[in-house]
Amino acid sequence: MPTSPDSPLTRQKVNLLTRELIQCGRDFHHRGWSLGTSSNYSVVLERDPLKLLMTGSGFDKGQLLPEQFVIVDEQAQLLSPGPLKPSAEALLHTELAKHGAGAVLHTHSVPATVLSEYFVRHGGLRITGYEMLKGLSGIQTHEAEAWIEIYPNTQDIASLAAEINQRLGDRSNPLRHGFLMAGHGLYTWGENIAAARRQVEVLEFLFEVVTQKRLLFGSF
Amino acid sequence: MPTSPDSPLTRQKVNLLTRELIQCGRDFHHRGWSLGTSSNYSVVLERDPLKLLMTGSGFDKGQLLPEQFVIVDEQAQLLSPGPLKPSAEALLHTELAKHGAGAVLHTHSVPATVLSEYFVRHGGLRITGYEMLKGLSGIQTHEAEAWIEIYPNTQDIASLAAEINQRLGDRSNPLRHGFLMAGHGLYTWGENIAAARRQVEVLEFLFEVVTQKRLLFGSF
Amino acid sequence: MPTSPDSPLTRQKVNLLTRELIQCGRDFHHRGWSLGTSSNYSVVLERDPLKLLMTGSGFDKGQLLPEQFVIVDEQAQLLSPGPLKPSAEALLHTELAKHGAGAVLHTHSVPATVLSEYFVRHGGLRITGYEMLKGLSGIQTHEAEAWIEIYPNTQDIASLAAEINQRLGDRSNPLRHGFLMAGHGLYTWGENIAAARRQVEVLEFLFEVVTQKRLLFGSF
Amino acid sequence: MPTSPDSPLTRQKVNLLTRELIQCGRDFHHRGWSLGTSSNYSVVLERDPLKLLMTGSGFDKGQLLPEQFVIVDEQAQLLSPGPLKPSAEALLHTELAKHGAGAVLHTHSVPATVLSEYFVRHGGLRITGYEMLKGLSGIQTHEAEAWIEIYPNTQDIASLAAEINQRLGDRSNPLRHGFLMAGHGLYTWGENIAAARRQVEVLEFLFEVVTQKRLLFGSF
Repeated sequence: MPTSPDSPLTRQKVNLLTRELIQCGRDFHHRGWSLGTSSNYSVVLERDPLKLLMTGSGFDKGQLLPEQFVIVDEQAQLLSPGPLKPSAEALLHTELAKHGAGAVLHTHSVPATVLSEYFVRHGGLRITGYEMLKGLSGIQTHEAEAWIEIYPNTQDIASLAAEINQRLGDRSNPLRHGFLMAGHGLYTWGENIAAARRQVEVLEFLFEVVTQKRLLFGSF
Repeated sequence: MPTSPDSPLTRQKVNLLTRELIQCGRDFHHRGWSLGTSSNYSVVLERDPLKLLMTGSGFDKGQLLPEQFVIVDEQAQLLSPGPLKPSAEALLHTELAKHGAGAVLHTHSVPATVLSEYFVRHGGLRITGYEMLKGLSGIQTHEAEAWIEIYPNTQDIASLAAEINQRLGDRSNPLRHGFLMAGHGLYTWGENIAAARRQVEVLEFLFEVVTQKRLLFGSF
Repeated sequence: MPTSPDSPLTRQKVNLLTRELIQCGRDFHHRGWSLGTSSNYSVVLERDPLKLLMTGSGFDKGQLLPEQFVIVDEQAQLLSPGPLKPSAEALLHTELAKHGAGAVLHTHSVPATVLSEYFVRHGGLRITGYEMLKGLSGIQTHEAEAWIEIYPNTQDIASLAAEINQRLGDRSNPLRHGFLMAGHGLYTWGENIAAARRQVEVLEFLFEVVTQKRLLFGSF
Repeated sequence: MPTSPDSPLTRQKVNLLTRELIQCGRDFHHRGWSLGTSSNYSVVLERDPLKLLMTGSGFDKGQLLPEQFVIVDEQAQLLSPGPLKPSAEALLHTELAKHGAGAVLHTHSVPATVLSEYFVRHGGLRITGYEMLKGLSGIQTHEAEAWIEIYPNTQDIASLAAEINQRLGDRSNPLRHGFLMAGHGLYTWGENIAAARRQVEVLEFLFEVVTQKRLLFGSF
């Protein structure tokens, strides 16, 4: 039975998760992964019906305030009252949540921007042979490889959301780990905020490794 | 009716904005954008007549003190008593304020220094196709491009201020977003300190992207 | 006479060393040397019989909690009750402790990952002529050189531990300073946590120097 | 009249300057300019006869303690009782102090290490045309240039100190701004700790500019 949105229990949970996302924003801003007003973060509040707590559009991620978050439903429509708008990209968060993500983090780093702009012509970036790959959810050995899909950047988020939905549901070869939007940044997710943060850290680390390998040895 | 410079209300406002610029300096110094005694920052206190609160010349931006700020008029002449001098570049701040800026931030980063030294021969740096461009005031889509003008570095700030004034008032193609001084750094602005900080973060991010793209792929 | 594992004295020592390793994780995570859930750290609690305090497997090193540590014996078997597992690499820690290390730190940095992937074909990386070499335990002059051995990455930690054991006991040319696992990261050690941290800082500094020299001048 | 070394006044001054150098170490360690146990810092306590407060040899600069400092005379001989040794490089500090420096800071950064190793063949590094040069003591315009002398690294500090002494006293072309030891790091100074810190920040910034310019455009 879902708790009422106004119940003390829900309020407490919202406060806790809000604080966790505020800390996330502070850390990512510090590392240069969420500068300007870039990035957006969300976490599942309830599953049935789906409710997401999400950063509102246009705020400094280095010093988020509790009043800068919104609650949206499974159509990314606003459930919380007030003047805030959810991010234009809220539909990507809801698609990912519907396929099981408990938290979704979208970041804009320099390496993700530059690599995605280049590798979009190949549809993705293959990363192989690094121990750090074992930090990605579901990978057990460093011999595994990760294929990070890259989509052209677009203002038509509804179409991209539909494509992501299709790729997540692909039984033979589902989208995994995260994806890049070209010249834009990373979407990744986990069962909770901590797991999603791990995915961000692992993928950003690997993007730096790929970058530095190319700079040093001229190959990817 | 402008408040008296000694009124409690003005004093409170000055204190608040001083604290905000001190925090700005701490953050920018930490990121390496305001090392040594480089950089200067200002914010509009009153519009009619124009009064700016501005960092005094020659202080460490990582640990600014309230007594290291000055108040200047629209000619960049000192209104606050005491031994401090406004920065030699105060005239650039007043020109920008006269054209509507609520806060002006001038920073010295390594990428801005190196890129501006090179691209001054082309008069500016064109940045196109990145999502982060949407963080710049007035840009709605990542398909837009930003043209960041670059001026030769000079000790003749009065002449540069006149040129900036002319460019800001150019009806067909006004100066936008910010500008670089070659081998020196960035000037950018916003309606308030927070907006100007966003501009700094977005532009510095884009300078790093341009730099890393060139390092990786040999092209700008 | 070893103190009882439950004695107040042992408890106090465990608390102290736990705090020291938590601080270590915070700093290394901040520098990007222990992102995701990578890295593991240990310190000798008792020598006879050998007992190590060690990070449990799978935790965020940026915010370790006291309950995320385990105590293992000389076979890397768990002595502390509870659900935690020691790291798969615990056997490397115990081998190093048996050969005299008081603390062992294993980190995953970008330069260590990239350099080790490349230089594993040569079996190691030779670093020579830098003042910072004097920061390595046992080196008195900058004219000395350090040879950092590199092993292929493996899931067979028992075999690697046997090889490390053999190399540490090699009388004519023992393994010194630390070693790299290819595409993975650094193992180094010292008489206590502070000494091991110094080794990490010195080696990571040198890996950055080697990287930047190659980028600037095309040679190692 | 110099105060007695045990007078309350001297003790207060020592405490104050010690805290300032501890903060300096924390900041420089954070930036990666004083990793391991590298670097040493000093400040003049008294001029007649000369007494310097200086970091003892072999401590972590990121968390210096008051008991890790020593006081030395003009021959770099220990005046403070206890087991600590002054740094092997203390003679360089005393030479600089005799020529007027109020504080001397020696740091080990990656760019300073790599550039000094390369440019020692030319005897120094010329830096020209950057606004940041105006942050160096005595430079009024960005059109000026700085010539940073580079000496081969040596264990014979007494000989190097004699050479530095001769260069500082050279009437026609005295050593200015700071100097590098090849593959080692930077020595710079100022009238007090704050001024010397500014010199470090300005020079380290310029070393990064020179490095990034070379990486981007293939020239220095």
